[in-house]
Amino acid sequence: MTLNPATPAFLDTLSARLPADTLRRPEARHLEEPRGRYAGQAAAVALPRSAEEVAEIIRAAHAARVGVVPYGGGTGLVGGQVMTEGATPILLSLERMRGIRALYPEENVLIAEAGAVLADVQAAAAEAGRLFPLSLAAEGSAQIGGNLATNAGGVNVLRYGNARDLCLGLEAVLPTGEIWHGLSRLRKDNTGYDLRNLLIGAEGTLGVITAAALKLSPIPANAGTAIFTVRDPEAAVALLTRARDAVGEGVSAFELIHRQSLEFLAEKLPELRQPFESHPEWCVLIELGLGKGQDAEAALADLFEQAMDAELTDDGVIAQSEAQRQALWALREHIPEANRLIGSVSSHDISVPISRIPEFIPAGWKAIANLDPSLRINCFGHLGDGNLHYNVFPAPGRSRADYEDLRGDVKRIIHDLVYDYGGSMSAEHGIGRLKVGDLERYGDPVKLAAMRAIKEALDPHGIMNPGAVVV
Amino acid sequence: MTLNPATPAFLDTLSARLPADTLRRPEARHLEEPRGRYAGQAAAVALPRSAEEVAEIIRAAHAARVGVVPYGGGTGLVGGQVMTEGATPILLSLERMRGIRALYPEENVLIAEAGAVLADVQAAAAEAGRLFPLSLAAEGSAQIGGNLATNAGGVNVLRYGNARDLCLGLEAVLPTGEIWHGLSRLRKDNTGYDLRNLLIGAEGTLGVITAAALKLSPIPANAGTAIFTVRDPEAAVALLTRARDAVGEGVSAFELIHRQSLEFLAEKLPELRQPFESHPEWCVLIELGLGKGQDAEAALADLFEQAMDAELTDDGVIAQSEAQRQALWALREHIPEANRLIGSVSSHDISVPISRIPEFIPAGWKAIANLDPSLRINCFGHLGDGNLHYNVFPAPGRSRADYEDLRGDVKRIIHDLVYDYGGSMSAEHGIGRLKVGDLERYGDPVKLAAMRAIKEALDPHGIMNPGAVVV
Repeated sequence: MTLNPATPAFLDTLSARLPADTLRRPEARHLEEPRGRYAGQAAAVALPRSAEEVAEIIRAAHAARVGVVPYGGGTGLVGGQVMTEGATPILLSLERMRGIRALYPEENVLIAEAGAVLADVQAAAAEAGRLFPLSLAAEGSAQIGGNLATNAGGVNVLRYGNARDLCLGLEAVLPTGEIWHGLSRLRKDNTGYDLRNLLIGAEGTLGVITAAALKLSPIPANAGTAIFTVRDPEAAVALLTRARDAVGEGVSAFELIHRQSLEFLAEKLPELRQPFESHPEWCVLIELGLGKGQDAEAALADLFEQAMDAELTDDGVIAQSEAQRQALWALREHIPEANRLIGSVSSHDISVPISRIPEFIPAGWKAIANLDPSLRINCFGHLGDGNLHYNVFPAPGRSRADYEDLRGDVKRIIHDLVYDYGGSMSAEHGIGRLKVGDLERYGDPVKLAAMRAIKEALDPHGIMNPGAVVV
Repeated sequence: MTLNPATPAFLDTLSARLPADTLRRPEARHLEEPRGRYAGQAAAVALPRSAEEVAEIIRAAHAARVGVVPYGGGTGLVGGQVMTEGATPILLSLERMRGIRALYPEENVLIAEAGAVLADVQAAAAEAGRLFPLSLAAEGSAQIGGNLATNAGGVNVLRYGNARDLCLGLEAVLPTGEIWHGLSRLRKDNTGYDLRNLLIGAEGTLGVITAAALKLSPIPANAGTAIFTVRDPEAAVALLTRARDAVGEGVSAFELIHRQSLEFLAEKLPELRQPFESHPEWCVLIELGLGKGQDAEAALADLFEQAMDAELTDDGVIAQSEAQRQALWALREHIPEANRLIGSVSSHDISVPISRIPEFIPAGWKAIANLDPSLRINCFGHLGDGNLHYNVFPAPGRSRADYEDLRGDVKRIIHDLVYDYGGSMSAEHGIGRLKVGDLERYGDPVKLAAMRAIKEALDPHGIMNPGAVVV
């Protein structure tokens, strides 16, 4: 499938079919990505205002065999939004389509356009007395369309699921430029293949999501947040089991944090208040969201007492106010920023079956130490989902660049180990362009063949996000 | 795509590649369906013992262009398991693959083979102190593979989701006879297209599910069951909102039942104990599953008091024992049997957005009365999911056969109305062969075209469940 570059002639023809000012020169922000590891290229950025305009753009690109790179908030970490090589594409940014089209509080449904910023969706739900539970560090700029295209995870997956679990219906433009009107508010609709879930997580390679019907939840009446030290990852898993035995689905988040995270935060973001006098080897951030008549603080205090008795923990802080609660979360949410400021040698967004995490973590340490004992590992993440960010950093005083030669080995060692443990090398970030080779290496060949067949069937000219996910 | 019949020569060749006694003559039960409206045909039934044997069968059928009809528990209501016309296929029954392969209590995961009966999966989970929440009237014979292939719903969807929401991974044989090893226990795994959800709900037209990794939940510590009369469907929706305000996700089931259901039960199954002295016009069956320290009976009593004050209800029964709880559920679960004994003119498994149900129900009554005022409507179902079984019955003393001429009109009127209200003509039963025409009529054409493209890409010879879902 050979693509053509987006020539001036193509852009002129396309421009003539669209309202003035729909095509622009890309800004720098459109061609960057958060870790600064890729520089994108694009002949133009298209800024449509409606699904019909998106369809016009895709139809033209399909006819001319020009690549289209969908662009949301630009917060993806695997290069899915930046095309670095191949025939120059156009970018399609959803930033003008950011409306909340409707909200049905009695149905717990909100309909948002794809360019709506995640935080704005959360705020619209909150204003109606409802919760939109998708929550992640980039929520202030990430867009819901991108969240769905990448099946974003975040801190509340344990209770509420991934982005795909929060979506009831989609409006989307398929690669031939036709609009699928699938904006259903129904909880049950068994009428044919699950096109919704096929587009969710396809990272823009099977079409462009233009709007979504999203599931809202009741706001838990009584929330509580705490941070407890834990003896080790095994103690963390045991504590999670106890928490769930006590309050069931009431455990909204359960985040594991290694000492290295706290040290990086102290070094790079010293204004953040640390909860413990000295950095514990491991700690967990726990969020409970309980119902009326239940006392979240008391449940956390009870859990702490149990954990002390079982020697799972030896210190803890239970937030006593909203400010304290936010301070605890700020710590967790700033870990990625501290990591960026340190500069990782290689970052790994992995998952392994929860029961195997206590074995996996030290096995990874050992394997990396065998390669180069100066490397540091910052392991943190969504323990309740088996999803760890297992990131490898330079020795103090050295930089990412010093380890250029080792990077491939580091990644290979971690990912091989992950697959030995029945895990995944992309838990929540997706494949993008960064992990295409990993998918080839670790993916099930039968699934990969099916993916290629589906891609060719729906996007015969291969125009949608070329080079991402399937090549 | 022209298929060949399964000739004796084909069966001989296939038989030679499989262990003895894998191919048999179909029994009567393999060619029937619960409502007795279709008679299937098949040259043989294949009874494989492993995914490898399934693959062998599918490879042979693919090569010879012979149709394969996957067969689970045979409880489907839309003819997905019976092929009535076209080149004689083989049936592929999973009944020998009924093992529970593994259970990971700390991960809340169970791995079952496709032929495991739903009730056996529930029992295995319960034995480990966990809940497998999928629950439906046919659970004593329905198989988990069929539940997934049809994305079964049932009474706990409100809280736990449909079958697709309860599945983490699949092992499946694709239409070219290759095995996809996708039996992941991971909660987060963003590595390419969502093949799992594509197979779930595809009703065997894109491959055969051979095993599944299933999500378990904690067993709610305190369950409570009640039946309340309600003034009308609007009062039922209001009561649901109040119940959720009070206990959030603790509402496990919320079933609406019309007087007609109670009358049919009294007529056909008089041994079932009725909860009210005289049949109320409407009632709701409510199930709460609450956590430790919460009192489900007290919550139901409180809800009843609120509902009395708001004039939503005027009578109610709160189960005081497990026997009473089961008696209330028996009532709900026997409605389909009573319906079968009466014999419907036309049955409709529909969903509409929850907030529109109070308008939809009387609009349907009116439209059917306009057609023939002697018709009776039995409306019951999963109100919390917007899913109603809106079934039309003969006048007392007359039979289904008397209305042969009207059947098409009845269905058309109901389904047209459903789509006017933004609903679906198949909420939980699927398309099968019964609703292929409805899908053509009501389905989004862009989605239908995408479905056909996917079908052709994955099943180029069209051997998998020919005539179901997409034709």
